[in-house]
Amino acid sequence: MPEDIQKIIPVDSPSLEELHHTLNELLEEEKFKEAREFLGNLHHAEIARLMSSLGALERNIVFDLLEKESQHDVLPELEEPDQEELLDRLSDERIGDILEQLDSDDAADIAGLLDESVRSRVLEATEAEDREEVEKLLSYDEESAGGLMALELVTVSDKAIARDAIETVRKAREAEEIEDIHYVYVLDHELHLKGRLSILDLMLAPGKQPVSEILDPDMITISSDLDQEEVARIFRRYDLISAPVVENDGKLVGRITVDDIVDVIQDEAEEDLGFLGGVGEEEVSERSLFRASRARLPWLLIAFFGELLSVLVLASYETELATLLVIAFFIPVVIAVAGNVGIQSSTIVVRGLATGDIPLHHTFKRIGREVIVGFINGIVISLLFAGVIILWQRDLKVAFAVSFSLICVIVIAAVTGAMIPFALKKFKQDPAHASGPFITMTNDVIGLAVYMILTTNILL
Amino acid sequence: MPEDIQKIIPVDSPSLEELHHTLNELLEEEKFKEAREFLGNLHHAEIARLMSSLGALERNIVFDLLEKESQHDVLPELEEPDQEELLDRLSDERIGDILEQLDSDDAADIAGLLDESVRSRVLEATEAEDREEVEKLLSYDEESAGGLMALELVTVSDKAIARDAIETVRKAREAEEIEDIHYVYVLDHELHLKGRLSILDLMLAPGKQPVSEILDPDMITISSDLDQEEVARIFRRYDLISAPVVENDGKLVGRITVDDIVDVIQDEAEEDLGFLGGVGEEEVSERSLFRASRARLPWLLIAFFGELLSVLVLASYETELATLLVIAFFIPVVIAVAGNVGIQSSTIVVRGLATGDIPLHHTFKRIGREVIVGFINGIVISLLFAGVIILWQRDLKVAFAVSFSLICVIVIAAVTGAMIPFALKKFKQDPAHASGPFITMTNDVIGLAVYMILTTNILL
Repeated sequence: MPEDIQKIIPVDSPSLEELHHTLNELLEEEKFKEAREFLGNLHHAEIARLMSSLGALERNIVFDLLEKESQHDVLPELEEPDQEELLDRLSDERIGDILEQLDSDDAADIAGLLDESVRSRVLEATEAEDREEVEKLLSYDEESAGGLMALELVTVSDKAIARDAIETVRKAREAEEIEDIHYVYVLDHELHLKGRLSILDLMLAPGKQPVSEILDPDMITISSDLDQEEVARIFRRYDLISAPVVENDGKLVGRITVDDIVDVIQDEAEEDLGFLGGVGEEEVSERSLFRASRARLPWLLIAFFGELLSVLVLASYETELATLLVIAFFIPVVIAVAGNVGIQSSTIVVRGLATGDIPLHHTFKRIGREVIVGFINGIVISLLFAGVIILWQRDLKVAFAVSFSLICVIVIAAVTGAMIPFALKKFKQDPAHASGPFITMTNDVIGLAVYMILTTNILL
Repeated sequence: MPEDIQKIIPVDSPSLEELHHTLNELLEEEKFKEAREFLGNLHHAEIARLMSSLGALERNIVFDLLEKESQHDVLPELEEPDQEELLDRLSDERIGDILEQLDSDDAADIAGLLDESVRSRVLEATEAEDREEVEKLLSYDEESAGGLMALELVTVSDKAIARDAIETVRKAREAEEIEDIHYVYVLDHELHLKGRLSILDLMLAPGKQPVSEILDPDMITISSDLDQEEVARIFRRYDLISAPVVENDGKLVGRITVDDIVDVIQDEAEEDLGFLGGVGEEEVSERSLFRASRARLPWLLIAFFGELLSVLVLASYETELATLLVIAFFIPVVIAVAGNVGIQSSTIVVRGLATGDIPLHHTFKRIGREVIVGFINGIVISLLFAGVIILWQRDLKVAFAVSFSLICVIVIAAVTGAMIPFALKKFKQDPAHASGPFITMTNDVIGLAVYMILTTNILL
């Protein structure tokens, strides 16, 4: 069925906003038949995006308007809060039905969202095979290779010939068990993984060739307990599109495909951004204002209680400040610049540790580098600052005291900013948890203390 | 050649640190033969990582120790600063040789790093076909689909049968023109793209079946001028592993594969993180301290000059501060908390705009949401603050003035933080450029002014 070029999905055709507008109109006018048709022409990923831009009521209506098959495609694409909302409303039976239709990894993700009591009711009612798959996948840590993998695999014995392997692929395809097949995995009689056959090699091989002659034994295998961030690094490093997952005993248990890795990379990057910005793991699509505020409050409390120490520092210099108020004026500049230097250093170190570009044995080298970069910029800003103070206050001594303190504060901030992520990594914590608010607060308090000590000693 | 399970590359075998240590020892003892053997056993991605952890001298020695073929594999995997360093040392002839061996997209990336004069000299000496490919790719914006794509494609006519397509793949493979083939693209006589054949479908089809019967016409095509961030979103949304790139006239020009998209996602996320952290586009692997310091200085200057306004605000309240020094003590808390609230709001909005989770027509809804979340947390922190002040100063009026001002400052910070990224997006700028230092500085100045106005008016 050759088709016109127009049938190829144009990527820049109707924007989400236009689709949203059309759908909303159809719903408002209760033209449900037309809405159903409209949705039928969209890709499931498009429907999912559209649904998350709707209100809760409309979202539920749209989901009900979809064909059952389309529901199965759309549900895994939705954001978690939306999935939970829909699941709340569906009967146990319907959920069980959905789980049976989904790929094992998607089914496990959905089942993982259910309350324990609902989940065990639902799973009891599903087919034994599907239940076991979901339960097996749920037994892995959600953020490990096991939590990422799907169990659907095409395997052949190492005694097979190419034609056998092709027939196995055909059967798997006809049974609709597995959609995207990149490799056929070759197992020995103990079910240990011997290698893999790419579909491309299989297509080009003569039918009678033993698979043992065309398999690739030097593939990269992922251990089921490996952290997903490390799995993503391996996919990036070796440009993988699919990788087999093995248990510690070398038994093949599943496979991870690059589409899930792309999501992991995005999620991990967003998590790092969230920590730097002090919103933690708050989802952009979080609908509960209460949950959003709760996700952010800890960072604000860190800032609040930490800065109370700044208040103490200032209060302990009450007499000095009363006689020399001018040094108080410059406090915002000093702590803002130092805070920024600290965040700069920590940002670079957090990024480098996350991508693996900074190896842990470079700790001191890297801190040294950050100090030098901080120092160079400290000199520039301090000279500017001294110039401004001289022009404004016509007081060389104040200019010297303030700008000299600023350099010291900046260097300390560069050290703190670089050191905290390394320290976290050393103690097996995620360096990204050296959040922006925490580093800013630390530098504010230390910086303010150093500034007050230096300036008052020089000037009084 | 069936191999033992041990031959499968174990992912958690020798760490980078151990490899680094071994290699360094071999180099120090000038055991170059052993070093060459050691390198010969490593994957090229591993060698690239290892090289970037070495000093400049060792890096050059290691590169020279590699087989030519291995050099071709390793070079594209290196970080840009390392690539530039190596290219500086290679002869024009050798660079031309490398360009001829690389895939078109890698060749164009490498050629793009050369100074214009070197590049034209090198390209003049390379084969016409390779030169044209590189020049064609360099004509696209580096951050567009055209800049990402490779020109290597396997295509067949829409009149062909399955067997023809398979033979075309076989030839392309034997000519070593293209390594990873996921699809064969089907063209009509005007070279317009009619659809694609997956290798899987091709393998399962009878040899005599016309390709027009098995092609998938509903594929997603990417326009060559599309921004790479948008390309990445499309890959993520539709779970693609490869996509054809077409010109505006519908002519197929190249393909983008998911391994490059994975890098785009990582790079774009790092860029966002870099702006939030005030380091801009500084590379973690940047070796020049001068360039690192120059990348960061603009943000520090923004903070510095911005905060001079804070100094002006404070100085204009000199008399009030002299009589009521206690309100100065609380300034660090007020600006730190407000600064964090602003960064929290902007982080969520920047993330949402980057992933497309926040559509632009939700601007006011979103800003409203951020204000409410800020207000809820503002109440919590302000009550705590009031409590602390009452216990410490035993002054209800000061407690009220300070904590009431704090709520106002927080709400303003939430509005500013959420608004700036939206405004940038509206004016076609990257919302991520609403960097942390800029938002913090803006909120510091506005917050301080509001705090001083409110507290002095209430208390004096």
